[in-house]
Amino acid sequence: MARALVLGAGGFIGTHLCAALRRAGDEVVAFGHGESPPWAQNDPGVTWVRGDFAGTALAAETARGCDAVFHLIGSRSPALSDSDPVADLAGTVIATVRFLEALRAAAPRRLVFVSSGGTVYGPTDRLPIPEDAPTEPIGAYGINKLTIEKYLGLHHRRHGLDTCVLRVANPFGEHQVCQRQQGVVAAFIDAAVHGRPISIMGDGSSVRDYVYVGDVAEAMVRAARAPGLTQRVFNIGSGQGRSLNEIAAAVERMSGRPLERVALPARPGDVPAVILDITRARDVLGWQPATPWDTALEGTYRWALAQKGAS
Amino acid sequence: MARALVLGAGGFIGTHLCAALRRAGDEVVAFGHGESPPWAQNDPGVTWVRGDFAGTALAAETARGCDAVFHLIGSRSPALSDSDPVADLAGTVIATVRFLEALRAAAPRRLVFVSSGGTVYGPTDRLPIPEDAPTEPIGAYGINKLTIEKYLGLHHRRHGLDTCVLRVANPFGEHQVCQRQQGVVAAFIDAAVHGRPISIMGDGSSVRDYVYVGDVAEAMVRAARAPGLTQRVFNIGSGQGRSLNEIAAAVERMSGRPLERVALPARPGDVPAVILDITRARDVLGWQPATPWDTALEGTYRWALAQKGAS
Repeated sequence: MARALVLGAGGFIGTHLCAALRRAGDEVVAFGHGESPPWAQNDPGVTWVRGDFAGTALAAETARGCDAVFHLIGSRSPALSDSDPVADLAGTVIATVRFLEALRAAAPRRLVFVSSGGTVYGPTDRLPIPEDAPTEPIGAYGINKLTIEKYLGLHHRRHGLDTCVLRVANPFGEHQVCQRQQGVVAAFIDAAVHGRPISIMGDGSSVRDYVYVGDVAEAMVRAARAPGLTQRVFNIGSGQGRSLNEIAAAVERMSGRPLERVALPARPGDVPAVILDITRARDVLGWQPATPWDTALEGTYRWALAQKGAS
Repeated sequence: MARALVLGAGGFIGTHLCAALRRAGDEVVAFGHGESPPWAQNDPGVTWVRGDFAGTALAAETARGCDAVFHLIGSRSPALSDSDPVADLAGTVIATVRFLEALRAAAPRRLVFVSSGGTVYGPTDRLPIPEDAPTEPIGAYGINKLTIEKYLGLHHRRHGLDTCVLRVANPFGEHQVCQRQQGVVAAFIDAAVHGRPISIMGDGSSVRDYVYVGDVAEAMVRAARAPGLTQRVFNIGSGQGRSLNEIAAAVERMSGRPLERVALPARPGDVPAVILDITRARDVLGWQPATPWDTALEGTYRWALAQKGAS
């Protein structure tokens, strides 16, 4: 049994990661900025630590005695980062650089960082996108994720920190709360469940790589365990692209009712298509997305229905 | 006649840039954190503005009415950035992001940023290094320069800011003050002039691309004037590599006396060789280094001798 620290455990991916670690038999130290959620309270294998990642050394101190550290802390959405890039730089990049300095004393076996496969590459004609493609992010969210990746590289090279970066595509699944322009699947399902219209940017042809969050959590567990990494950056996606229009149609099939569409102007400079090449994760981590699209979408839809029923 | 704002005008490159702009007939607004230097006081075509780049909106306000803005503000050396990356992030990256936001109101014709050709690429086997090579900096200085480059790209794409990034190799020449592990040519000449030993890291085989600062200033003037840029990142170097041992030998020939060498351990993870491919600057900016190595070295040596005589 290993002991894992999850930073950002109360979030969407963090919730699934903690569950996957527990399934894999790990003891979990769950670090979050809020109160402990019910799943953490009801499991003696989970210790909830409430703290502020940016303002204190608590996160790094909590890493003492942990084998793996998962860093999932970041801005809630690209739109939020863009609206205040300075706050995002302070809260994510500077906070992480401070954390990495303090983490040296804790000496964890490995640090796994969740980066953004959807934003770090920027516009490209080369699809699917391999990890060695140019990285020209066009928003603050992607720039800041990339900067953190570089600082992880510095700590690997200078101080021998065993790092692993997962460039996660667009994750979706249960527990995703749709927020400002983030989480298209959650937003469309939420609209379907509550009988509200959906917003579609531009002509709806924008393509992204939607990956089920349970599969992402499994990739993270493997990233922490894979021995002797010589590659340290991995795309984690479905390897397939889906347009906004396809997502809307799939949600309509699921609910059996048409969605009312509200057309919004396309965001200037938005990347038309992101599809990640996941060959490296398959070859090195032995991981691949295991959950069929329809199964994942149905589970997400049922979760949203249950949330509606509970509220 | 154009009007140019130089941010960091009191520094090594800034001093040469202001002189080059004046020679080209431009009016210069020189922004620095210290008192105005004599060359600024004695020239009615130079307006000295003393201010703090990081703490205020003064720099962006000063840009009003300027055609070109040159951004030369950064950490004094890679060693300083590495010793306090958080301070460097705050003083350069965050300060620049704030500056870029405020600069939108001033709407200059072009922003020229001095990045670091010596550090943004990181270790590579591909020499000389073209601009589209991978960027894997291994120190905070290079990471922070690269992050600023990305934010310039964001402002170009989102807000139409006309940007030009110059990845300058290792500049040397008059007015370079040798500081912590920065400026090998200045350090070796200083040692020769004052009869002190030089420090050589490792076996002295480490190769860098040393470019005369007067040529760098000329490249900057051209970068501000070149019409309709479709490329926005340019290597500015000599295109040639020289080892520490070669520099030491050249300085010995210049002074006519042997230099005493003190061997220091090689810095772990140091990049063995950097030589920049300057084809793009030649093709697009019509620039190439014009000052022969011996001429530049002799001028630098004479300047150091004069400094010694004056002190």
